[in-house]
Amino acid sequence: MRYARCARDGREFFAIVEQGEVIEISAAPWLAHERGLRHPLADVVLLPPVVPPTFYAAGFNYKAHNRHHEELGYDPVKVGDRPEVGYRAQSALVGHDAAIVKPAGVEGRFETEAEVVAVIGTTLKHATREQAQAAVFGWTIGNDVSAREWQHADRTFYRAKNADTFKPMGPWISTDVDPLASTTTVRRNGVVDATFATGDMIFDPYDFIVEMTKYITLQPGDVLWMGADGNTPMAVGDVIDIDISGIGTLTNRVVAEGRDNEPTERMPR
Amino acid sequence: MRYARCARDGREFFAIVEQGEVIEISAAPWLAHERGLRHPLADVVLLPPVVPPTFYAAGFNYKAHNRHHEELGYDPVKVGDRPEVGYRAQSALVGHDAAIVKPAGVEGRFETEAEVVAVIGTTLKHATREQAQAAVFGWTIGNDVSAREWQHADRTFYRAKNADTFKPMGPWISTDVDPLASTTTVRRNGVVDATFATGDMIFDPYDFIVEMTKYITLQPGDVLWMGADGNTPMAVGDVIDIDISGIGTLTNRVVAEGRDNEPTERMPR
Repeated sequence: MRYARCARDGREFFAIVEQGEVIEISAAPWLAHERGLRHPLADVVLLPPVVPPTFYAAGFNYKAHNRHHEELGYDPVKVGDRPEVGYRAQSALVGHDAAIVKPAGVEGRFETEAEVVAVIGTTLKHATREQAQAAVFGWTIGNDVSAREWQHADRTFYRAKNADTFKPMGPWISTDVDPLASTTTVRRNGVVDATFATGDMIFDPYDFIVEMTKYITLQPGDVLWMGADGNTPMAVGDVIDIDISGIGTLTNRVVAEGRDNEPTERMPR
Repeated sequence: MRYARCARDGREFFAIVEQGEVIEISAAPWLAHERGLRHPLADVVLLPPVVPPTFYAAGFNYKAHNRHHEELGYDPVKVGDRPEVGYRAQSALVGHDAAIVKPAGVEGRFETEAEVVAVIGTTLKHATREQAQAAVFGWTIGNDVSAREWQHADRTFYRAKNADTFKPMGPWISTDVDPLASTTTVRRNGVVDATFATGDMIFDPYDFIVEMTKYITLQPGDVLWMGADGNTPMAVGDVIDIDISGIGTLTNRVVAEGRDNEPTERMPR
């Protein structure tokens, strides 16, 4: 099954995605729900499929990431002996087909990081690996947009990774896929820039969930972004596709910040 | 005015706090609302006064903090030339009178950081200092509970500052106070451990909001924790009061993690 969060005519709703249509459901997909109205998929806006109560991110978590890193002349990142989770900001979330707005002040490397995202479906603490596996409701795709000069200049990620529109997520949540057996493909303007085994992680999602829930109670709707293998450069005007086999394709176009930059409308929960 | 978020008989609601009573209101305090039922203050549970869409934290931001830091034998923290905001996790929030649960694995310094918290009331981007001042709806109190050995051992704050119950916030939001003229007092088991000028910050809340909104759209209900002057040690059984003049007192008791540790119930929004 595929579950989306949609907007149409000023209303927002969760929906099942089936054969070019969406079917409204009466509650979040991990809750008991009934089916309602149908709409053509082309007639709805796909929002981020969930606004997470807490937004977790694995960060540096792919075996090949250090190789790319060293090719760029950076010191290798020290890999820990256990999965230490970080965070991203809900304020930066946008959905499939939304613009990535490149801020006026960004210079240097401005990049895509293509990530698979675990969506949690239950309340969970002190989880075993089996409980962690059962707690993942489904999977979506994230683009951990990063402005590298800010990332190197700042103590925190507040603008390097959490500026408005820097966290595209979508297009929907897929429940019938094992992403550890998937392939991630990044296309820039239709041309493949990178392809890698989605599962080639240092710590897998269940390793993270077991470690996190020693200390933290996970909640339905929480998301865990699993890190990226490498980077794809982005310029204003580019269209970036992130495809993960069995899930779908997250597409976003890069636009320049306007002079009359408006506040980014946050999606209500 | 003082605004709380309350639970009673399985219901949750925003309320005005007046003379030993709470008066239900029909929407979040920064939205148009009507008054409803009254309850004795003693009959309701005070929840965190808001669950923020995004949870911002200034981190190191008091002039005296480095002096305390050096007294403990640490290198001074380099203070930046601009306010770089960080984040805390919504998963860790609890309200006034809730227990701070000390995890079984915590050893060494386990400490209170007493912080004033700005609650945002409007949508805001590219704010002037005047717009930043107008955008703060009111003020509450936060305890940035910190397990120092984990803080020093880990790459992220996932368990050092964001373990379950590590972010008490409350008791309510006060709108008629200038916290930059307030005094913060921390009591441990009724004995004053620390007292400092709440406004003795390196960067004040409006400095932060101006800098943040160059890149980030703030939303109603977002919170900004402003950092702490120092630390107060906590042991199991302690009762910690954080008093900020003009706002109120946030009180929490420290308890040990139980053997049958239950998931922490997250408050619905």
